[in-house]
Amino acid sequence: MLPDALDDFLALALRLADAAGELIRPYFRTPLAVDDKPDLTPVTAADRAAEQRMRALIAGQFPAHGILGEEFGRVREDAEFIWTLDPIDGTKSFISGVPLFGTLIGLTRAAKPILGIIDQPISRERWVGIAGRPTTLNGAEIHCRSCPGLTSATLFATTPDMFKGSDAAAFRRVSSAVKLTRFGADCYAYGLLAAGFIDLVLEADLKPYDFCPMVPIIEGAGGVATDWRGAPLDLASEGRALMAGDRRPYQAARALLGVN
Amino acid sequence: MLPDALDDFLALALRLADAAGELIRPYFRTPLAVDDKPDLTPVTAADRAAEQRMRALIAGQFPAHGILGEEFGRVREDAEFIWTLDPIDGTKSFISGVPLFGTLIGLTRAAKPILGIIDQPISRERWVGIAGRPTTLNGAEIHCRSCPGLTSATLFATTPDMFKGSDAAAFRRVSSAVKLTRFGADCYAYGLLAAGFIDLVLEADLKPYDFCPMVPIIEGAGGVATDWRGAPLDLASEGRALMAGDRRPYQAARALLGVN
Repeated sequence: MLPDALDDFLALALRLADAAGELIRPYFRTPLAVDDKPDLTPVTAADRAAEQRMRALIAGQFPAHGILGEEFGRVREDAEFIWTLDPIDGTKSFISGVPLFGTLIGLTRAAKPILGIIDQPISRERWVGIAGRPTTLNGAEIHCRSCPGLTSATLFATTPDMFKGSDAAAFRRVSSAVKLTRFGADCYAYGLLAAGFIDLVLEADLKPYDFCPMVPIIEGAGGVATDWRGAPLDLASEGRALMAGDRRPYQAARALLGVN
Repeated sequence: MLPDALDDFLALALRLADAAGELIRPYFRTPLAVDDKPDLTPVTAADRAAEQRMRALIAGQFPAHGILGEEFGRVREDAEFIWTLDPIDGTKSFISGVPLFGTLIGLTRAAKPILGIIDQPISRERWVGIAGRPTTLNGAEIHCRSCPGLTSATLFATTPDMFKGSDAAAFRRVSSAVKLTRFGADCYAYGLLAAGFIDLVLEADLKPYDFCPMVPIIEGAGGVATDWRGAPLDLASEGRALMAGDRRPYQAARALLGVN
């Protein structure tokens, strides 16, 4: 892959984020029909319109690329390049009027994440991560902060209800060892991690369109992003993510999770 | 109390919010020394500077009024009018870079809340409630939404960790009966309730400067704001708040709390 190709992919990814934001903003804090999907997660016309528009833009420019989107599934899943789309990550925040949801755009090559965007269309904050390049927030380079260990770490997760079975106990072991645990930020937490405001994000029950975009964003800010066992995250990973700005709390959290 | 006096109080309250926001904004997302208070809650220079400025403004205009502030305690607590001040409600959000904290300003007369402000200095959203008047968000009248019952209700609380002992089980009874429970919004959740985006806020372990400002804000938007037993909230209340936009989920939540 030539660097020029990566720049073409980035240009498209930015257009996708622009298009999604324009479609989503008019729906925010308006009465919206909320449908419950089979897994009981909510979806709105805003989710569907934004994903459809992004899929059309990808198909128009890179018709051979695959797409994995939250609302409309997979196409060309054997393609070398696959885009992951979550038009509104944090639909529960979105329908509650909380401006911490985000549009997540990822690109994988041979299943490995190479590009990620978190776009918050209300506060107009946009994180961009590209394999091998520094992560940016609204164009400015950002870096994870250093953190000597769990006792001084701030940990985020979307909700304690995302941890099932033995995962709940594992989460509690880490949560009870950190200085501060906070809930409710969805994808925004990964942006806070990349920008050096928090130290750890520990989540479960994620889909590839949730975690793939985060890998280049966190790694490009100097952090570490793996599954709970320490393995790299890719399209086939099972949805438990541990990301940290500093290897010291990362290693300590891994040990407490006790998953191998 | 003449209506003119209430307008004078409102004018001062708006000046307090302006002054606090100007002091707080420059500290947001900067490295800050975070001190742990005896109750292990964090406090920063931003909290202290904002409260000191607000106290000075009150003392300058209404030297006979009492003040109860989170960081600097009580003065003139036998006064007819007492201001309640929480310069940064949601300091944990503030130090994590999450723009859902807020400056809370309340005024009580004979211990009863008559004026409340929630000011979010980053998104520049300001909720104003005054006894007997419609609540506003950035100057526009807002109203709670209707909600037929718990099964269609969205519930917010700052964190599940705020419920101790039997309160935790009571919270879980309500939480497991609603459609959606969300954490992490601090005072912002009350603003969302007043503006008709969510249906219930259920919290415990609050202080008067947390809940007194909310009473005129929620009531002026057509909602109901009491303690868990259904009693009016005032300066002497014990810090368990149940607020709702519609009496139907309110009554159902009260019944499930089982506190009399």
